[in-house]
Amino acid sequence: MSSTFSFQCLACCSQTKARVGVFSTPHGIVETPRFMPVGTLANVKTLTPAQLKETGAQMVLSNTYHLHLQPGEKIVAGGGGLHKFMGWNGPMLTDSGGFQVFSLSEMRKITEDGVIFRSPHDGQIINLTPERSIEIQNTLGADVIMAFDECPPYPATRQEVQAATARTYRWLQRCIAAHQRSDQALFGIVQGGVYLDLRSQAAVALAELDLPGYAIGGVSVGEPPELIASIVQATAPLLPPDKPRYLMGVGTYREMAIAIASGVDLFDCVIPTRWARHGTAMVKGDRWNLKNAKFREDFTPLDETCACYTCQNFTRAYISHLVRSQEILAYTLLSIHNISELIRFTQKIREAILGDRFTKEFAHWLTPGEMG
Amino acid sequence: MSSTFSFQCLACCSQTKARVGVFSTPHGIVETPRFMPVGTLANVKTLTPAQLKETGAQMVLSNTYHLHLQPGEKIVAGGGGLHKFMGWNGPMLTDSGGFQVFSLSEMRKITEDGVIFRSPHDGQIINLTPERSIEIQNTLGADVIMAFDECPPYPATRQEVQAATARTYRWLQRCIAAHQRSDQALFGIVQGGVYLDLRSQAAVALAELDLPGYAIGGVSVGEPPELIASIVQATAPLLPPDKPRYLMGVGTYREMAIAIASGVDLFDCVIPTRWARHGTAMVKGDRWNLKNAKFREDFTPLDETCACYTCQNFTRAYISHLVRSQEILAYTLLSIHNISELIRFTQKIREAILGDRFTKEFAHWLTPGEMG
Repeated sequence: MSSTFSFQCLACCSQTKARVGVFSTPHGIVETPRFMPVGTLANVKTLTPAQLKETGAQMVLSNTYHLHLQPGEKIVAGGGGLHKFMGWNGPMLTDSGGFQVFSLSEMRKITEDGVIFRSPHDGQIINLTPERSIEIQNTLGADVIMAFDECPPYPATRQEVQAATARTYRWLQRCIAAHQRSDQALFGIVQGGVYLDLRSQAAVALAELDLPGYAIGGVSVGEPPELIASIVQATAPLLPPDKPRYLMGVGTYREMAIAIASGVDLFDCVIPTRWARHGTAMVKGDRWNLKNAKFREDFTPLDETCACYTCQNFTRAYISHLVRSQEILAYTLLSIHNISELIRFTQKIREAILGDRFTKEFAHWLTPGEMG
Repeated sequence: MSSTFSFQCLACCSQTKARVGVFSTPHGIVETPRFMPVGTLANVKTLTPAQLKETGAQMVLSNTYHLHLQPGEKIVAGGGGLHKFMGWNGPMLTDSGGFQVFSLSEMRKITEDGVIFRSPHDGQIINLTPERSIEIQNTLGADVIMAFDECPPYPATRQEVQAATARTYRWLQRCIAAHQRSDQALFGIVQGGVYLDLRSQAAVALAELDLPGYAIGGVSVGEPPELIASIVQATAPLLPPDKPRYLMGVGTYREMAIAIASGVDLFDCVIPTRWARHGTAMVKGDRWNLKNAKFREDFTPLDETCACYTCQNFTRAYISHLVRSQEILAYTLLSIHNISELIRFTQKIREAILGDRFTKEFAHWLTPGEMG
């Protein structure tokens, strides 16, 4: 790992593999475990960087696939790189574009070289390869960049997943060779679908490459939630203990708590902002539709224990009024709260691990149950 | 005027009727001349109160017609009144609903009693009278409330306008009789269409009622902009010099400058937020469509002399990217800038009047020309 990056483990849970760490990047530290908000198009939807900072956000994601299509990485670089372009001075991470190419784009063709697809913007044919993904991410300039991987769909046969996992490993080696910037940490991604032995093999193989960080990818793609726990439990403990571990695309309470118990440090998910735009608040592990009639005259905050700007200044009745009126401010206020809520959830786990009270205080979330 | 309200004139222009004042309300002062942002549904679209405060906003408007339909004034009162409900602790003003009933609602029927119309929300028949408008505004709780008036369309015959102006005066007397709260100032509205003698007569008649403030209504309803200047010039000087004067619905540079030269103190307009939602920035008297290709790689702020959050933190290229991507944050950043821009325009005029440089520094805006 470049000396620009370090991961320090400060405390371990005595009963699980949970740990408290500090991940240092050129743009500041990330206190782990921690939820990371998603800023797909170089902004976390509806929020200014000032509002985002107030939620407790430390590391923020952005999407290579989306930024390549609009405005294009050259314009982001022209604006001084992703941090300066979007006004976020904290740590940032870009994904490789792989997941979006596989899940969003039309007319894609996968070969050993990479993926060819049609741009939904202008219909142009785009060829995304491991080298090209890294080149784009080097140009965008996030602190952490992700390897270009093949994310098999769910369900997929063992043979299909095995082939995708093997290709992901070959593509990772090409990503490592293509990577140009020492001020960016390249994370490898463990694939393997729901086949736990393939996951374990991939984790062991990737661990040997001594990368600055590791991700578990291809989860939360439609498989039953109990399988997410099994996948993480079969994977995370095999990754190097002195490197950060990131579970991609997961941001529900139970799945985060169980993953943290397996030694995962970082999470991201679009749920808090997507739900906000649907008028849904995440409160104490529950989801509330603010259009519900019971909120019309409820003059209490969403969560009276929450310190976010929304809960400190507005009532459920007011937010319900804004949602009913389809006022954009509703989505901003709910995004502030929902992101604050998920970050605070991971912060509370962090404090619990430091006090060795994790399994006691989070027992509710560590037992199997509904995804939430 | 209740002792809760006062208007102090601090300075007058030596060459025009322009003046600098301080309007005191139960929720703070308004330094005049000043542009007031519009928060139709108990929020200035896309902005939190914290962001609104940063624009320099002092007094904020909200619309009785809209709030009566959603969430209803009783819910606003249940939330502690308009200020507390929406989290704005500064001065507030509600209009009477008259203008919206005349311009927006369907199936309206005007009688001496008031206006009957069909609610666009639930089809219910609503009867809005001077008494009812004041009752709703008393319940909402803004610092300044407006008389319920009949706003004739443009064009309208002299006879039609004369009838509407006479009715507006009778309705004003009913509003005064109905008004219940000494912590709210009721402003009268001068109507009279484009007929300058009707305007003058109405202004003189209203002035005799010794109200805490006066508005000029029924302008910017489709008439040529040069007529706005004539109307204001024929009206404003006849209103009591020791009371604030408010030109309703006007927020363009030239029309504000010319009105200030006639002694107007306050302005409101939805243009800055509406244009923001169309991706348009107001810069130095001009309007820019941020989708224009020339902004794609323009890494300078909208206005390098502007101190607003948007100009201090983001480039034209970034905002252009957000507008192209239809990201809500674009509308927030443009609303912040556009409102800051109009408020600063009136602040600069204020400073110029204080230094008696108004006609010299604002000569460009004081001569007839394109509406802007």
